[in-house]
Amino acid sequence: MPELRKDYILDSWVIIATERAKRPSDFKVEKQEIKEKICYFCPGNEKYTTNETYKIEKDGKWYIRSFQNKFPAVKNQGDFNIKTHNEFYTFADAYGYHEVVVETPDHKKQLWDLTTEDLKLLFNLYNQRINSLSILPGVNYVQIFKNHGHDAGSSITHSHSQIIAYNEVSKRVQDEIEASKKHNNCPYCDIIKKEKDSFRRCFENNNFIAFTPYASRFPFEIWVFPKQHIRTLKECNLDDLSLIMLQILKQLKKLNAPYNFMLHYSPMNENLHFHIEILPRLSSWAGFEFSGTVINSMSPEEAAKFYRED
Amino acid sequence: MPELRKDYILDSWVIIATERAKRPSDFKVEKQEIKEKICYFCPGNEKYTTNETYKIEKDGKWYIRSFQNKFPAVKNQGDFNIKTHNEFYTFADAYGYHEVVVETPDHKKQLWDLTTEDLKLLFNLYNQRINSLSILPGVNYVQIFKNHGHDAGSSITHSHSQIIAYNEVSKRVQDEIEASKKHNNCPYCDIIKKEKDSFRRCFENNNFIAFTPYASRFPFEIWVFPKQHIRTLKECNLDDLSLIMLQILKQLKKLNAPYNFMLHYSPMNENLHFHIEILPRLSSWAGFEFSGTVINSMSPEEAAKFYRED
Repeated sequence: MPELRKDYILDSWVIIATERAKRPSDFKVEKQEIKEKICYFCPGNEKYTTNETYKIEKDGKWYIRSFQNKFPAVKNQGDFNIKTHNEFYTFADAYGYHEVVVETPDHKKQLWDLTTEDLKLLFNLYNQRINSLSILPGVNYVQIFKNHGHDAGSSITHSHSQIIAYNEVSKRVQDEIEASKKHNNCPYCDIIKKEKDSFRRCFENNNFIAFTPYASRFPFEIWVFPKQHIRTLKECNLDDLSLIMLQILKQLKKLNAPYNFMLHYSPMNENLHFHIEILPRLSSWAGFEFSGTVINSMSPEEAAKFYRED
Repeated sequence: MPELRKDYILDSWVIIATERAKRPSDFKVEKQEIKEKICYFCPGNEKYTTNETYKIEKDGKWYIRSFQNKFPAVKNQGDFNIKTHNEFYTFADAYGYHEVVVETPDHKKQLWDLTTEDLKLLFNLYNQRINSLSILPGVNYVQIFKNHGHDAGSSITHSHSQIIAYNEVSKRVQDEIEASKKHNNCPYCDIIKKEKDSFRRCFENNNFIAFTPYASRFPFEIWVFPKQHIRTLKECNLDDLSLIMLQILKQLKKLNAPYNFMLHYSPMNENLHFHIEILPRLSSWAGFEFSGTVINSMSPEEAAKFYRED
């Protein structure tokens, strides 16, 4: 059973997921190549990916599908209620559901090759999974994220994203919620208004805005917000969201950039302005970054220029 | 001039260092190879690395030397005193000194190939640099760190470490200081006593202990602490520190592991138990980790077994 553990004294959480465990020798660094003899995510190989949780069909075939991750970081076993504090040792079962979303049946296409209609279907599926998973006992947050490319932590090339529904709220989301509470109004509503007129504004449509954040942690980091104060994906205008996301992805394709994106929505009884953070992974965090201060070699103003280019 | 920027509402700091800036096209991901036509860190090429700050000699030649980084993340220009809060925009000049430490004249040797005597000389140099830099106006912390290997953020193979002395205290160090204050005694003194008898204990000598931390963020993460409550490097027994560090490094060599290490010492008027964090970088942080919950596929207990093996 995977285990949630807290740092001795810091508010920092780790899931020890030995389901994925390898022996020390398996970690040895050899030449890195992504070798795939067979693609488990391709049509025809559905038997390798069991426990399908949802699918969207087109012409009688699946077009987007989600299923349980074969090597889950969290599991719906154990007890999601018990968190043990034993002086410096705080732990719990890492309870929950870990799913994979295959974004297209086409092995040769990446997310940035799809259409706005495709992206809209994907957001619809995310929405469906959030709605279904968030009401399950023990689920405190449904973290949706994508890893694209080796340097962004992905080992499978077929375009996919992931869902981890678990008995914690993601720390960065929680930090944003707590920081928002210190302001009278939603701070992100005010930030959006300011960034709208800044050199960091990249794209905008009726319902959404995308800008490179003032203290970007990565070159080309970019955030997408609904312009109205909306808390969840289900309230979003998915046409406009898909449109702005594709504009960003098409620019990232020019760089062939590995990237992560993460949905930050507001959990029940909380009030966080919904947004998506997109982190291109063109540079590595090193020792200084893991001491807590990030060095970014590209200013967000310069990155925004790149996004605005044709 | 590099710029320190704070996240809009979170306590998260970034240095925008455009001295290292590249054009967007330079970020494009091609096949990654570390190409070095000439090694600037080798004996005979000292003219390429100017502004030497310290050196240790052997047989009339330099054996370890430090100099100013050609592409500094911080600079001793601007004003280190002024921090501007402009509603959501908090910024300052990223003031300070960024140095490189070449750890050996031998291009073919990595740190894990050196002797305990060599490591002792290196720690002596670190100590000298901390003492000299920490008393300079505007320097609030001297962060010493090492990046080894591409996946740990290093682009130069000749064995080296780095020093950034700057007008902030590294966030993780500050967090440890603040968390320590919440305890009556030094929590790390108590943690050391507990880990001494745990399955996570790896190495121990008269003055130092090394263990894999309970909530390890990386496979094979390991921390080194003086067993007595010591706040700074200059109080450490460097024979014993070098001995335990080499034991760790020799095991990491077996994995050919990229790694970072960072020194956490106590700044003036604060009280933090000195330690070194060593982070092997055999797995990548991805979208879920950047949401704030880390997945580690190796338990620290298993990692400790590896460290204890011959």
